[in-house]
Amino acid sequence: MAQQPQLHFPILIFTSIFVISFSSFIRPPHPFDPLTESEFKLIRNIIKKKYPVGPTHRFTFQYVGLNEPDKSGVLSWHLSLHHNVTPPPRQAFVIARENRKTREIVVDFSSRAIVSDIIRVGHGNPMLTIDEQEVATELVLKFKPFRQSIRRRGLEVSEVVVTSSTMGWFGEKDTDRLIKTIPFYLNGSVNTYLRPIEGMTIIVNLEKMKVTTFKDRFMGPLPKANGTEYRFSKLKPPFGPTLKNSIFLQPNGPGFKIDGHVVRFYIFWVIHVEIKYYSPVLLKIIILNNLKFSYTKIFQEYKLKKNTNIYNFQNNDYINKNYIMWRHTEAEVPGLEITEVRPDVSLVARMVTTVGNYDYIVDYEFKPSGAIKMEVGLTGVLEVKPVEYVHTSEIKEDDIHGTIVADNTVGVNHDHFVTYRLDLDIDGTENSFVRTELVTKRTPKSVKTPRKSYWTTNRKTVKTEAEARVKLGLRAEELMVVNPNRLTKHGNEVGYRLFPGPVSGTLMAHDDYPQIRGAFTNYNVWITLYNKSEVWASGLYADRSQGDDTLAVWSQRNREIEKKDIVMWYTVGFHHVPCQEDFPTMPTLSSGFELRPANFFEQNPVLKTKPIKLSSAPKCTPKNGY
Amino acid sequence: MAQQPQLHFPILIFTSIFVISFSSFIRPPHPFDPLTESEFKLIRNIIKKKYPVGPTHRFTFQYVGLNEPDKSGVLSWHLSLHHNVTPPPRQAFVIARENRKTREIVVDFSSRAIVSDIIRVGHGNPMLTIDEQEVATELVLKFKPFRQSIRRRGLEVSEVVVTSSTMGWFGEKDTDRLIKTIPFYLNGSVNTYLRPIEGMTIIVNLEKMKVTTFKDRFMGPLPKANGTEYRFSKLKPPFGPTLKNSIFLQPNGPGFKIDGHVVRFYIFWVIHVEIKYYSPVLLKIIILNNLKFSYTKIFQEYKLKKNTNIYNFQNNDYINKNYIMWRHTEAEVPGLEITEVRPDVSLVARMVTTVGNYDYIVDYEFKPSGAIKMEVGLTGVLEVKPVEYVHTSEIKEDDIHGTIVADNTVGVNHDHFVTYRLDLDIDGTENSFVRTELVTKRTPKSVKTPRKSYWTTNRKTVKTEAEARVKLGLRAEELMVVNPNRLTKHGNEVGYRLFPGPVSGTLMAHDDYPQIRGAFTNYNVWITLYNKSEVWASGLYADRSQGDDTLAVWSQRNREIEKKDIVMWYTVGFHHVPCQEDFPTMPTLSSGFELRPANFFEQNPVLKTKPIKLSSAPKCTPKNGY
Repeated sequence: MAQQPQLHFPILIFTSIFVISFSSFIRPPHPFDPLTESEFKLIRNIIKKKYPVGPTHRFTFQYVGLNEPDKSGVLSWHLSLHHNVTPPPRQAFVIARENRKTREIVVDFSSRAIVSDIIRVGHGNPMLTIDEQEVATELVLKFKPFRQSIRRRGLEVSEVVVTSSTMGWFGEKDTDRLIKTIPFYLNGSVNTYLRPIEGMTIIVNLEKMKVTTFKDRFMGPLPKANGTEYRFSKLKPPFGPTLKNSIFLQPNGPGFKIDGHVVRFYIFWVIHVEIKYYSPVLLKIIILNNLKFSYTKIFQEYKLKKNTNIYNFQNNDYINKNYIMWRHTEAEVPGLEITEVRPDVSLVARMVTTVGNYDYIVDYEFKPSGAIKMEVGLTGVLEVKPVEYVHTSEIKEDDIHGTIVADNTVGVNHDHFVTYRLDLDIDGTENSFVRTELVTKRTPKSVKTPRKSYWTTNRKTVKTEAEARVKLGLRAEELMVVNPNRLTKHGNEVGYRLFPGPVSGTLMAHDDYPQIRGAFTNYNVWITLYNKSEVWASGLYADRSQGDDTLAVWSQRNREIEKKDIVMWYTVGFHHVPCQEDFPTMPTLSSGFELRPANFFEQNPVLKTKPIKLSSAPKCTPKNGY
Repeated sequence: MAQQPQLHFPILIFTSIFVISFSSFIRPPHPFDPLTESEFKLIRNIIKKKYPVGPTHRFTFQYVGLNEPDKSGVLSWHLSLHHNVTPPPRQAFVIARENRKTREIVVDFSSRAIVSDIIRVGHGNPMLTIDEQEVATELVLKFKPFRQSIRRRGLEVSEVVVTSSTMGWFGEKDTDRLIKTIPFYLNGSVNTYLRPIEGMTIIVNLEKMKVTTFKDRFMGPLPKANGTEYRFSKLKPPFGPTLKNSIFLQPNGPGFKIDGHVVRFYIFWVIHVEIKYYSPVLLKIIILNNLKFSYTKIFQEYKLKKNTNIYNFQNNDYINKNYIMWRHTEAEVPGLEITEVRPDVSLVARMVTTVGNYDYIVDYEFKPSGAIKMEVGLTGVLEVKPVEYVHTSEIKEDDIHGTIVADNTVGVNHDHFVTYRLDLDIDGTENSFVRTELVTKRTPKSVKTPRKSYWTTNRKTVKTEAEARVKLGLRAEELMVVNPNRLTKHGNEVGYRLFPGPVSGTLMAHDDYPQIRGAFTNYNVWITLYNKSEVWASGLYADRSQGDDTLAVWSQRNREIEKKDIVMWYTVGFHHVPCQEDFPTMPTLSSGFELRPANFFEQNPVLKTKPIKLSSAPKCTPKNGY
């Protein structure tokens, strides 16, 4: 069966936050800065007073994070000289389970009090914690019928790894907090996901913390351990290809500065970076447009499932692929031979997140020209299905829904969709979405020309959310977010243009349950009215949700979006029909898109960049770990 | 009027070849090696004997290059151990104008003789030489009515630059060798193309070398010189942004070796590089698949118009954007925390060609994993149209077919299409083109599942050229070239898969004259049967051609292409609605596509790559110019 991975099921726990939290710092925090360690302690103390935790009173933190302040408060703080305006109140947002109810609690730090505490009603459960998933899988490993089923297969229980997966929703009325567990067999392999033990259905109720469903349906083949190794220390020669080392050096230091969670990169970029614990990464990007001395802000948020395990700004800027920022050779001027070249130097913020078998590499590339490139790379290990076959000639079915990538191993066809929330505020919050269609025209007979056609632009400012839904690839169209109140000196609306990448849309029927929940992939681009609570394309309570709080549902409201505070949504999609090269680890496959200033600056903003003189580099000594 | 730049008008002369030719080398040439200096001399001597050039007998070399040997001869030479098979005969192909006739002459080097000499008939003229274009523009500068028209505009003739442009074809029967010339005004600017002097039609007959048409139709506005400067030495402060220098070092040397025109990069890549003088660059890529000890070959050709002015292999490999070749973090194995990461090291072959106002950056990126990324970057200077306006509020027309990018300056809407000829020979020349559609299926009612749909693959080996024409973006589809005779050990057909980039198709009506000639943009992807003479998508005689020798015409033959020697064509397209950031030079805008092995290797070919130890770098001293 073709599979669609279940994205958007963030799993975080209170305790894990301490592990990855940033060290505290003294200067007053930026309003967007994530919670500090002392703030976390304060939250726990304040909530403990109201909800004493004990054997008879269950209380668990499912999520704890900054209660993001209202945009207007942050903006006025930002725009003020030396930030001498009172910042918006600093608060925490907590999702907790208390005696089988979900609570949304807001803690205010200045008053050290709970200022809001409501019981949440509606479909969907809060995100699972790592703790409860670990307890659930340990439970299964000790569950007698499960151990019997493993032994009945001739396998050693001590070599079994049990992983967990969210249940999804397939039309059930009852959406208890259940979790599906899946056993894999190590026994000579550390490539867990390539040796699934098939045939069992094992479901744990997380509230009762009990195995509530266990079915041993059939016994299937088990792929071999041989060939699944990928640790260099355990692989056997011959090795290769042997890559030659490359080193980046910046003899005069990097082009960016980090101040707490704020990163400054040349004149245009002020980037606020944090790991949003609820999701892998959140960037708030502020462009200070020095040419116009006006203010522009781009929020940008990004969501993947589960935990983030690597996150860093590159140690260096880099001359990106020896990219050329701009160049021109001019040979027409008598007596002159002009060649002007400016190499490009970008800053990349990278986040890598492992989601079970897959590893996602998420890059934000900031260019001095004001462009931002977003890229997602997929690597890691395939999701596979054991089969009896080792060769295509043995296949009996019409369709194995994948590719034989190794002995007894089918790499299963699947999709990846990564949705970006792009809260662009171009020179203020009052923005519009402009669709400019490029249309073919026949030349009128009245015009004396041998030409039969030309193309022209049909520029349309979009009025409603419904008109802003875009399926890419069907027609030639330019998509822009503009501020119609701000014009360049030549009268063009200031804006940013979306340059889509390769196009991929959903292949599921719209009435299929996973697609109802993943309806944010029904279009490639959406615009919604800014709403503080409409942040996650799949909804805040994604676990077992019924798709009633997705981007598609918000768009159905069909609000007016002209000259409004609007949010752009873009989905990068991949359909993956595996090939043998993807086994046992998969070479990275990337896709993405770009946002470029379009009449945002009065002219080429990097025209007056000084050429880099590579010859002026002083002596350099790469250090260990550099 | 919307404009479509006239691509595919290579302009080269015999003499210029010496300037950019590679230095001679001693070892016997590779059959694909370009002509050497001594071979050029030999050609001239041999042809001079037959055609004595003098005042009464005009003879000009329009093109001189290698007469590409038959593929079979090259292949058997390649496949032989130590190349001990006789290489195919080495010959030159010459296109000449002799007393107003076009001749195609083949010179054989071993016999030192002309082995073929035919008069070429048919539409279209041979490529123009730089010499004749220069003579033509000098002629115009001395042409009295032209000088009077310049003075009538109050302009100085000494500050006028005249450039030339091919005429195109708009249904005329008479397609003499004419050239259109266009005047620009310097007078304080060196950014030639931003100050067009409008209103004159000036056509030179290249055979008679006379101005045959001169019309002064109207006097238009002239954009200012102010603001067009882009030379760093002439710009005034404030400068910025000031980029920090970045240096690449490879302490253990590069990962590639250059041997004449052959570049070897790790085990997989053997790349034959030359400037095809007729076109900017030609790469012949040979993949030696060490895993299978079998032979694979990919030809790849690329054509742009006019002359190439920069061409180099990067001095270094580089860790591309700190790309990750593959990675995986595994947290599920008890007692182990595994993270394996391999940085990617690519080799980029770059060619930069300036075509009048525009600069094209053409990159071929070779990855150790066997993937090839093709990218075109556009930069340089816009084509502009003078207008009276400085602000959008002054516009009187319905449509100015562009954007006001500076005072009195409209950046004109236009397109760029760059067509790649990809002569893939996957494990031999008998290949097939496979279109695999990803199709949505309703789950049958007989199947007990709450799921309503799934997707599956509809794999179809394409029979004919007509079925192989692809408009991208309309449906979910995977495109591959495979060798159906060669299977992996699991029975999959070995192949390479095309990963398209952003999609752009033509906007011109198919019966419009420029589109008849540029009909190769009617589809994004085509497959044709290999034919030695079907190399240039716009035909070999592109100047004033009538579109009867284009890729579209060859495809109309609708030949059978299953298990045949086939060629894939891919067009990278850009529709460009300019913005103010594009003035006075344009930040690079890039697009491209990728070819990746798909069941070409038995498994991940870079699995056993050694991790790069950055800490082992010895002391290093960047040298001047490094």
